Amino acid sequence: MERSVKRLAVLGSTGSIGQQTLAVVRALPQRFRVVALAAGGNTALLKQQVSEFQPELGYCTAGGEGTGLSLEEMAAYPGVDVAVIATAGKAGLAPVLAAARAGKTIALANKEALVMAGGIIIAEAERRGAKILPVDSEHSAIWQCLLGEVSAPERLILTASGGPFRRYPAARLTKVTAAQALRHPSWKMGKKVTIDSATLMNKGLEIIEAHWLFRMPLERIRVLVHPQSIVHSLVEFADGSVKAQLGCPDMRLPIQFALTYPERVASPELPRLDWDSLKTLDFEPPDGGKFPCLGLAREAARLGGTFPAVLGAADEAAVALFLDGKIGFMDIPRLVGKVLAQHQFTAEPDIEDIMAADGWARRCLLELAGGKR
Amino acid sequence: MERSVKRLAVLGSTGSIGQQTLAVVRALPQRFRVVALAAGGNTALLKQQVSEFQPELGYCTAGGEGTGLSLEEMAAYPGVDVAVIATAGKAGLAPVLAAARAGKTIALANKEALVMAGGIIIAEAERRGAKILPVDSEHSAIWQCLLGEVSAPERLILTASGGPFRRYPAARLTKVTAAQALRHPSWKMGKKVTIDSATLMNKGLEIIEAHWLFRMPLERIRVLVHPQSIVHSLVEFADGSVKAQLGCPDMRLPIQFALTYPERVASPELPRLDWDSLKTLDFEPPDGGKFPCLGLAREAARLGGTFPAVLGAADEAAVALFLDGKIGFMDIPRLVGKVLAQHQFTAEPDIEDIMAADGWARRCLLELAGGKR
Repeated sequence: MERSVKRLAVLGSTGSIGQQTLAVVRALPQRFRVVALAAGGNTALLKQQVSEFQPELGYCTAGGEGTGLSLEEMAAYPGVDVAVIATAGKAGLAPVLAAARAGKTIALANKEALVMAGGIIIAEAERRGAKILPVDSEHSAIWQCLLGEVSAPERLILTASGGPFRRYPAARLTKVTAAQALRHPSWKMGKKVTIDSATLMNKGLEIIEAHWLFRMPLERIRVLVHPQSIVHSLVEFADGSVKAQLGCPDMRLPIQFALTYPERVASPELPRLDWDSLKTLDFEPPDGGKFPCLGLAREAARLGGTFPAVLGAADEAAVALFLDGKIGFMDIPRLVGKVLAQHQFTAEPDIEDIMAADGWARRCLLELAGGKR
Repeated sequence: MERSVKRLAVLGSTGSIGQQTLAVVRALPQRFRVVALAAGGNTALLKQQVSEFQPELGYCTAGGEGTGLSLEEMAAYPGVDVAVIATAGKAGLAPVLAAARAGKTIALANKEALVMAGGIIIAEAERRGAKILPVDSEHSAIWQCLLGEVSAPERLILTASGGPFRRYPAARLTKVTAAQALRHPSWKMGKKVTIDSATLMNKGLEIIEAHWLFRMPLERIRVLVHPQSIVHSLVEFADGSVKAQLGCPDMRLPIQFALTYPERVASPELPRLDWDSLKTLDFEPPDGGKFPCLGLAREAARLGGTFPAVLGAADEAAVALFLDGKIGFMDIPRLVGKVLAQHQFTAEPDIEDIMAADGWARRCLLELAGGKR
């Protein structure tokens, strides 16, 4: 069968998801061509990648080094079939918007864009016929469960590993260190998302992401703690039937499906569940008292407007301080909650309002942490 | 939205699945009209059903009582949109074939037809464009997981409750009574299938059914014991992704989906999983040593021809003897195995060969049980 090679722009290529995206491409070289690469800090690795993949549209770095095209131009370029947006943090927003406006297929690994500006991005994507294919394992699971279904689902159930502190008593959480929080029990991920998994803020951000991706009211999105990280999420339908997607906790799997969709492609690289050793899948409701970030995220999402952007920005600033040993683990929700409480929100923000709220939230959090507010 | 009413012929309406089919119709009266009813022994109940649903094409009983149409005619009638085949045992074969030849949509709850003559039925259905929608919970689960998938699945994983004797030591199995075997831990079903669940023959027959329904090689169909009966089956894809369908163990759910497909319809009657109380899903490989029926079924399926029909017929005869207290629980696999060993098979049987093999197998089993062979 003749098959056209998919041309990929990989933005954020030196991060955890970016590197795994390139691993997927490496394993299936006949299917994909990397035509553009962009990355933030790690220029040495980016240059290695450029030399390996020889992207014909060039590359660019956060510092502006590169061969001419900006991130937005790469994401929207006519010769790109799929824009893989694995750029960390708010740097993902502009390229996602550009790709949506260009009607592209977007493999979206950046959470922040939808958290900050989900309404704007989804409206733009619908207007221009852009397809947003989720790369996050939970959202990929939901998407896979929805394939072929003609009736709208009734409820989405996001699973959460519960992080390394699931069994810790609340008192002990105040004393945990960054090193402990970085030891995720099941997933290997970047530092920011690993800390967010430990606070459950990651799941809160994913609720917001799912709300936009699947047009699902917030109150119909549930979280279930599932420590084995094998069931990646579930969908409940009107008739009571539930579908779940399972697999080894390896990001290459959802990345590959976003790239090969609608096909399923065998890859020797991808790990498989071992049916002989599958024993127990456990589930429990999350403990919102011990992990207040989940409630903060729900509240920010419910209030809407600039609140989710403030949540995401304040969390990013707080996690950076925690990783630097400047604040404690439980200061993350405490400070983020304070920033949210002080926020003067805009109900129907444009991108500039959102960027302003983001900047304000970061400053506010730093001041609160430094005792200046 | 204007929606046409689906016209149903319900064959086997007084059995467990038949009654639950009518319960689904009763709960969604604006969607379905029962236009034909047929049943075996329970004429009193059939008459009640006729008086409630007023089937315009009439009814018929096993004794030939009724209003003219035979089971085959009902299943193939032009005014029937969906033929629900819930007839028990080999009586289901002729109507399934008739419906397939007429290019009907068939909601198939009868296992024996596919076990006996899967190759013939599937070939006929493909030739005439008949759709076979599975009603068995495991096959419905697989079908639901395959919706919208364009690549052939790599493996099917049928779940099995393990029956009431899962934890019994082998020695104790020889002494269990019919009353004990009828106490299924999770499903409420007819007697024959409940005993088959206790011996795991039911799962063996389902392997054969899945092989035909989904055109899946036998060696790519696995069985996993899952005592909670919440995960109804799973599908593994080429990329290592796995999808599962879950739900309360209630046959009305797969019955309703076969009838409303492709839509999902809310029904106040259907039970829902309670996410707050979902705790643990356990899995373990089946113990083929303690439950030899599973291996017998695989072997009969592998040999093909008339062997699966002989397996099904011998099992039916053996289960009847066990229910009557005439033979022990472990005599079921012992006698079925002996019948298979004595069978002179036909490699490419027609329906008459299959019916002859069926009759031979029943006689052979009775003779073996009576010590006459």
